Amino acid sequence: MAWPRRSFITCMIAATADMRDDPLPSWNDCAAKRAMLAFVARVTDTASPDFIPAPERIAVFDNDGTLWPENPVPFQAAFGFDELRRRAAAEPALAESTMVQAALTGDLAPLLADGYAGLREVIAHSHADITTDAFRQSVEAWLAAARHPRFGRRYDDLTYQPMQEVLRMLEGSGFKNFIVSGGGADFMRVWVERVYGIPHERVVGSTGQTSFELRDGVPILTKSLEGLFVNDKHAKPAGIHQFIGRRPVMCYGNSDGDHAMLQYTTIGNPRPSFGLIVHHTDGAREYAYDAVTASTGRLVAALAEAPERGWHVVDMKQDWNTVFSPER
Amino acid sequence: MAWPRRSFITCMIAATADMRDDPLPSWNDCAAKRAMLAFVARVTDTASPDFIPAPERIAVFDNDGTLWPENPVPFQAAFGFDELRRRAAAEPALAESTMVQAALTGDLAPLLADGYAGLREVIAHSHADITTDAFRQSVEAWLAAARHPRFGRRYDDLTYQPMQEVLRMLEGSGFKNFIVSGGGADFMRVWVERVYGIPHERVVGSTGQTSFELRDGVPILTKSLEGLFVNDKHAKPAGIHQFIGRRPVMCYGNSDGDHAMLQYTTIGNPRPSFGLIVHHTDGAREYAYDAVTASTGRLVAALAEAPERGWHVVDMKQDWNTVFSPER
Repeated sequence: MAWPRRSFITCMIAATADMRDDPLPSWNDCAAKRAMLAFVARVTDTASPDFIPAPERIAVFDNDGTLWPENPVPFQAAFGFDELRRRAAAEPALAESTMVQAALTGDLAPLLADGYAGLREVIAHSHADITTDAFRQSVEAWLAAARHPRFGRRYDDLTYQPMQEVLRMLEGSGFKNFIVSGGGADFMRVWVERVYGIPHERVVGSTGQTSFELRDGVPILTKSLEGLFVNDKHAKPAGIHQFIGRRPVMCYGNSDGDHAMLQYTTIGNPRPSFGLIVHHTDGAREYAYDAVTASTGRLVAALAEAPERGWHVVDMKQDWNTVFSPER
Repeated sequence: MAWPRRSFITCMIAATADMRDDPLPSWNDCAAKRAMLAFVARVTDTASPDFIPAPERIAVFDNDGTLWPENPVPFQAAFGFDELRRRAAAEPALAESTMVQAALTGDLAPLLADGYAGLREVIAHSHADITTDAFRQSVEAWLAAARHPRFGRRYDDLTYQPMQEVLRMLEGSGFKNFIVSGGGADFMRVWVERVYGIPHERVVGSTGQTSFELRDGVPILTKSLEGLFVNDKHAKPAGIHQFIGRRPVMCYGNSDGDHAMLQYTTIGNPRPSFGLIVHHTDGAREYAYDAVTASTGRLVAALAEAPERGWHVVDMKQDWNTVFSPER
């Protein structure tokens, strides 16, 4: 069939405009992308029966494995292990613990057993009995010096470009983006505003009790792991309720740790809702995993439930034409 | 002295413009008002050495006694006591507790003894083993029906007009206003957005653990008082750190419960900072109290420290020309 000249030109102009206006250029055309764009269009259209008022446009994002990688170990664990390594030379007693030994050799399995008891033990060495100011400085120093073992880049430079585009698009559509992560809130707040444009108060993470005192007349907050709230699995909806106080309408996760918050967001929500799972299928550009046991990113139950619930599963290899954000 | 005509008119015009442009018309001219206006002007002026970037413009407000009254009992306690009254008829076993008896007769002293142990016991009857949805509905029903015993108005209609003006002025100057209250976060979030224009995620309050489950396939969050975080006194700076993750630059309180967060805001802060205490001196229009023992509003230590720290003390009787917001 011969295209009439005018129609061809019109078509080319429209296609160019589409590419230019695409808020998600790192996403290939796929069902998840189309569904996301359609969802945002209808819930922000005041003429739509599905319109959601701005204060209720709450979008929640897991962090590890959803906004940045969680391999070979979650980045906060890499920080904790590096801190142990730095201190082990001067404090040989440290290395007597079998869990510290596992951390120093990067052996994640024993650390994740028994509900992460070992991980908690080794994390305490860098995350407790330290002032919040000193902790922030230690994270900043580590971020400046450490490099990811496979990609050779700063850890906070390794965010997923397609997800950065989602954050920007939602922000531009009157959504409030929140991080809802098992990671430590204090760890994330060091860089999350600079890296994701998400302010500190929109970070829901694991938190321990902090104690306040005037030390030599100066206010001091000291971290501890007492009363630790681990913001993972069934605790994520509780954390959302405690910190955000409102049910989300969009939820992005990648593992069974996000299963409960996907359910909380999408099942029986009186508002239209949207759930999305980032499926790690790209061993060449990133990592390929789901059912592995010794990983914080194990994805089995949520993946099995996705079709029934209408959660969109993103195949990273097929659906993303770019993985990482450009180097800053 | 005879005023030249032109100067008199110019003067009148200027005075009218001042009144019209005054963002705090319910405040009489006083040191606290002048200091507040000057502080906001200099920290929002990009040319000033004291300029504070918008993300760091965090203002924290106590609620009971600072934004609305806390007499004859804190309003959330009035809710809890009314719930007990409503249920005591059908559940006579309830009234066997001496603390419930104290609540039913409005006797606050035994309830506040031993670190509020009695208050916690009676509050549990209306605040635990209840879904978050059912709790919200019970607060809404109570707000619609209950009237303040002295003022005869809805409780959520009794906010201080001068403080509402402060909230609006700061919001208009790029500040983020947060409630930091000993009150329950779940209780406050029912009405705080409508009444103060403060979104749910900017409410830092007392919180207990919430548990998530799918009950008959529907997501349910159930409240408990386990792991209760009481956001008062030394816990307020910890709560600010946990929920906001950033040191405030303005702090408004009225009692020794706000002492630690006034210290945290203003002592050794690398940014310019501002502290203000609302002093209840107006028994005719509201209540006059400070050193009373059996009150959540006891104000002794913070008041004594105010001059040394430069905290502004507002004399409600002298400094406010209006106390309550107009009836809605």
